[in-house]
Amino acid sequence: MGFNTNIPSSEIDIRISNIQSHLVKSEIDAILVSNNANLFYTAGYIFNGYVYIPQNGKAIYFVRRPVGLSANNIIYINKPEQIVEHIDISNLTTIGLELDTTTYSTIERLNKIFPNATITNASGILRKVRSTKTPLEIECLMQSGEKHAKTYSQIPSVYRDGMTDLELQIEIERLSRLEGCLGQFRISGDSMEIFMGNLIAGENADNPSPYDFAMGGAGLNPSLPVGCNGTTITQGTSIMVDLNGNFTGYMTDMTRVFSVGEIGELAHKAHKCSIRINRELATMGKPGTPAKALFERALAIATEEGLDMYFMGHRQHAGFVGHGVGIEVNELPVIAPRSKDILEENNVIALEPKFVIPQVGAVGIENTYIVTPEGMKPITNAPEEIISLA
Amino acid sequence: MGFNTNIPSSEIDIRISNIQSHLVKSEIDAILVSNNANLFYTAGYIFNGYVYIPQNGKAIYFVRRPVGLSANNIIYINKPEQIVEHIDISNLTTIGLELDTTTYSTIERLNKIFPNATITNASGILRKVRSTKTPLEIECLMQSGEKHAKTYSQIPSVYRDGMTDLELQIEIERLSRLEGCLGQFRISGDSMEIFMGNLIAGENADNPSPYDFAMGGAGLNPSLPVGCNGTTITQGTSIMVDLNGNFTGYMTDMTRVFSVGEIGELAHKAHKCSIRINRELATMGKPGTPAKALFERALAIATEEGLDMYFMGHRQHAGFVGHGVGIEVNELPVIAPRSKDILEENNVIALEPKFVIPQVGAVGIENTYIVTPEGMKPITNAPEEIISLA
Repeated sequence: MGFNTNIPSSEIDIRISNIQSHLVKSEIDAILVSNNANLFYTAGYIFNGYVYIPQNGKAIYFVRRPVGLSANNIIYINKPEQIVEHIDISNLTTIGLELDTTTYSTIERLNKIFPNATITNASGILRKVRSTKTPLEIECLMQSGEKHAKTYSQIPSVYRDGMTDLELQIEIERLSRLEGCLGQFRISGDSMEIFMGNLIAGENADNPSPYDFAMGGAGLNPSLPVGCNGTTITQGTSIMVDLNGNFTGYMTDMTRVFSVGEIGELAHKAHKCSIRINRELATMGKPGTPAKALFERALAIATEEGLDMYFMGHRQHAGFVGHGVGIEVNELPVIAPRSKDILEENNVIALEPKFVIPQVGAVGIENTYIVTPEGMKPITNAPEEIISLA
Repeated sequence: MGFNTNIPSSEIDIRISNIQSHLVKSEIDAILVSNNANLFYTAGYIFNGYVYIPQNGKAIYFVRRPVGLSANNIIYINKPEQIVEHIDISNLTTIGLELDTTTYSTIERLNKIFPNATITNASGILRKVRSTKTPLEIECLMQSGEKHAKTYSQIPSVYRDGMTDLELQIEIERLSRLEGCLGQFRISGDSMEIFMGNLIAGENADNPSPYDFAMGGAGLNPSLPVGCNGTTITQGTSIMVDLNGNFTGYMTDMTRVFSVGEIGELAHKAHKCSIRINRELATMGKPGTPAKALFERALAIATEEGLDMYFMGHRQHAGFVGHGVGIEVNELPVIAPRSKDILEENNVIALEPKFVIPQVGAVGIENTYIVTPEGMKPITNAPEEIISLA
């Protein structure tokens, strides 16, 4: 296609065709894509411009920048108003735009380009199509999972007594980047901001976050009130590492816990419970399983073990136990009490049953799984027990 | 206010009052703020929720998360529909929302909360107010500038022969984080994505970017096609470092150039020209100077020196030579040919006249300046000449 991409055009054809079958079902004549995550999905490359996908036929790539791309289906434009010079809009009655991710001002402008068409929200279709991964996407996610695990295996080698949480996080960020982590942490939605993920040591785990995260952390500055807060790592505390797994444009999500000194029975019990929840949910999670059944089972296990007051936070509780991952870290399905999602084969889901133990810190593991007819297969494979650093 | 912030409430009062005088002038009864950068500006802290600012009186902070804040003007809500239970909307005829940064779906939802009020775009007012920095904001920016410069001064200590551009960037990222860089690179707008800024070595500078950046770089993956591309740093090339200056929630922007071996006369000439443009523009830039006059002067100098074909890019040219910085890296004023902005005292502006020299790489410097009646004073103070690494 002329894009500097490692994704073959046959793969793009599959994705476009999956979107088109949803357009037919939803009676949407065409969609216009411009969100970065959706551009990467539909073009294999992020550029400044739009992908126009009609119900039938080839997608057209309208490119503002970069210069120098060439292929039959690439058309250069300076502004979106030029799109209609290149497509027949006479029969266009409904056009799908990404209303959940595009700003109001931009949608108003795009709306004027299609004066006779009804604007409808295409965000849901794109989220739905992206939630079922193709074999190539699963390959990308498995590569990320391998590198993610390899990064974590090196954590004990960079720990030194007397370090702050931030100093340890910086060394892990460096290891991760040297393994190929791209750094960019893609989150869907207007407001969530996070840098390279979070390392949470000791009591900082109980500082509530402005976001719907299980783990909080006060952060280093009020402009970014999440994650490590510069505290020195002390004896008798846990260190939860939940850092960026974007090594391929596709993100795995993975958490492991380390300890310094003796962290006590309750923390160990809760950590074992998290491993148990991961195992049971992975066995339950097959095509057809309701997402909310997984949440309910997780909460039931935590309650049965008398740990519900620490489950998914202590002062503040997160409202989910897992989520789809892929190009973004918060994709479908959502494993939450009121989720209407039903698991499908080749969903890729991170499960993160975590516990915050007062005075000790956060414990629990997170793995990323592929949904198969035999259950959920983990792709972030590394020892799951708490690793003692000192 | 109950927020975990280092910004005193007297400072917040000044900012709210500046916004309110714009509301009076624009005949907007109130605005509702929810964009993270604007939340940080109006609350001193980022939370999940809204700041309601009427034309007169106190701002009200509607908080969804985190739990545990308490103050007279903080009200907890679960959903934005509850806002109107706490304010008198009977006389509200016009309400300002952030239409340039909030998604269409969110604005549609907020619109319904104020059925009798006309929605108007408040993004411009907030951008305008934020462009003139308070003394405390200037202090934050000066602190960032100092740490930014201190980070760059350590670059020669981490260079090793045979490194790739990525390996060098990773070591500088680590230095920067150890100096206190928060990592988060805040950019306004739907689509621009960048991790910790860019290090561009040699010919990679001429790979065009999807964004309106002077420097491109192919990037490491099509999901993030900017910046270093894993190339080994070779003799006879320049290395341009333009990395994240967010040390305080306020970002300075700063670029310096390093060389390996002999990079030739043209590159040195262009680099000197960039220093000259910085000097002349800093002298010209006073309250009342039109932003576009600065761009025109920069282009005139580059043309006079026969360097216009390399100015702000070679295969692809960026359409500006500078921009406001603060909480975000692309604030007002914009130093561009068609800019209508007029410089004001205490604007903080990054000037980045850069050149891409084929086969050699990018050269030129970028400093961040405060606009004063005596001209623009640099706050990113470090040697400006090209530093030889080997």
